Amino acid sequence: MSTQTADPIQLVVSNWRSQNKRVDQLLATFTPEQWQKEIAPGRNRGIYLLGHLTAVNDALLPLFGLGERLFPELEAAFLRNPDRTPGFEFPSVEDLQDKWQTVNATLEGHFAKMTAEHWLGRHTAVSEADFANEPHRNKLNVLLNRTVHQGFHLGQLELLK
Amino acid sequence: MSTQTADPIQLVVSNWRSQNKRVDQLLATFTPEQWQKEIAPGRNRGIYLLGHLTAVNDALLPLFGLGERLFPELEAAFLRNPDRTPGFEFPSVEDLQDKWQTVNATLEGHFAKMTAEHWLGRHTAVSEADFANEPHRNKLNVLLNRTVHQGFHLGQLELLK
Repeated sequence: MSTQTADPIQLVVSNWRSQNKRVDQLLATFTPEQWQKEIAPGRNRGIYLLGHLTAVNDALLPLFGLGERLFPELEAAFLRNPDRTPGFEFPSVEDLQDKWQTVNATLEGHFAKMTAEHWLGRHTAVSEADFANEPHRNKLNVLLNRTVHQGFHLGQLELLK
Repeated sequence: MSTQTADPIQLVVSNWRSQNKRVDQLLATFTPEQWQKEIAPGRNRGIYLLGHLTAVNDALLPLFGLGERLFPELEAAFLRNPDRTPGFEFPSVEDLQDKWQTVNATLEGHFAKMTAEHWLGRHTAVSEADFANEPHRNKLNVLLNRTVHQGFHLGQLELLK
């Protein structure tokens, strides 16, 4: 028996969850040394992308009006600056793994309670006036974008294998 | 004025279209030589991924019951076999670019006429009996998966810059 429905909103949430699981699988298979490797010569390291994806998911909390970020300290190192910016000491892979899972479990808890009206309502980065003209700028669209964004970096992380 | 709506189905179609546009942008900026490069040492070449994404989109036509593939000859080289399989001579980048655009224009023509019922109906790779128990195996979910899949390879193509 499948628990999945044909509801388009739940299809999007389910696909976001699938992408998270793919990162979980990499965490279960890559060694800490693999995470320190560059995805291609001179490009981001795996650990940077892990921190980046964690920070991006964490930022969904305030963007969806669900609360504050859990780990705001990730923003400067993994969102606002590129890999190897002087002055940042990265957390360990184990620490980032814990944060990754905490963020996603927190989001899942909220998502389980969100109604269609909530999903199709505006996110906090769009004003009410703009949203009236641009109703596609809703939370569901953000989650869809983030899912594709995660796929984008998973394609790169795959190269660490 | 935005033409976009909050309809979850149209959000998914719109995100698929955005990913196609990102490939179009790469086609407008990369030289034919860049497409011949590997995304990382020993990995797929850009031209293989371009053929792969074209073949994947082309396969949506029969999968959605919209007709036959336009370019079935791409399947063996770009879907069923990895890059550098002996015995395949690749089309030129210019030829693949034409096929890419023809496939997407054809799909767009169909998508413009598809109703919600059609999107949420089964695709041709799932039987009616299985679909009764697994209603999430609909066309919309396939398009969502393909959009993320395209993001996955766009993350790799980005490395050719």
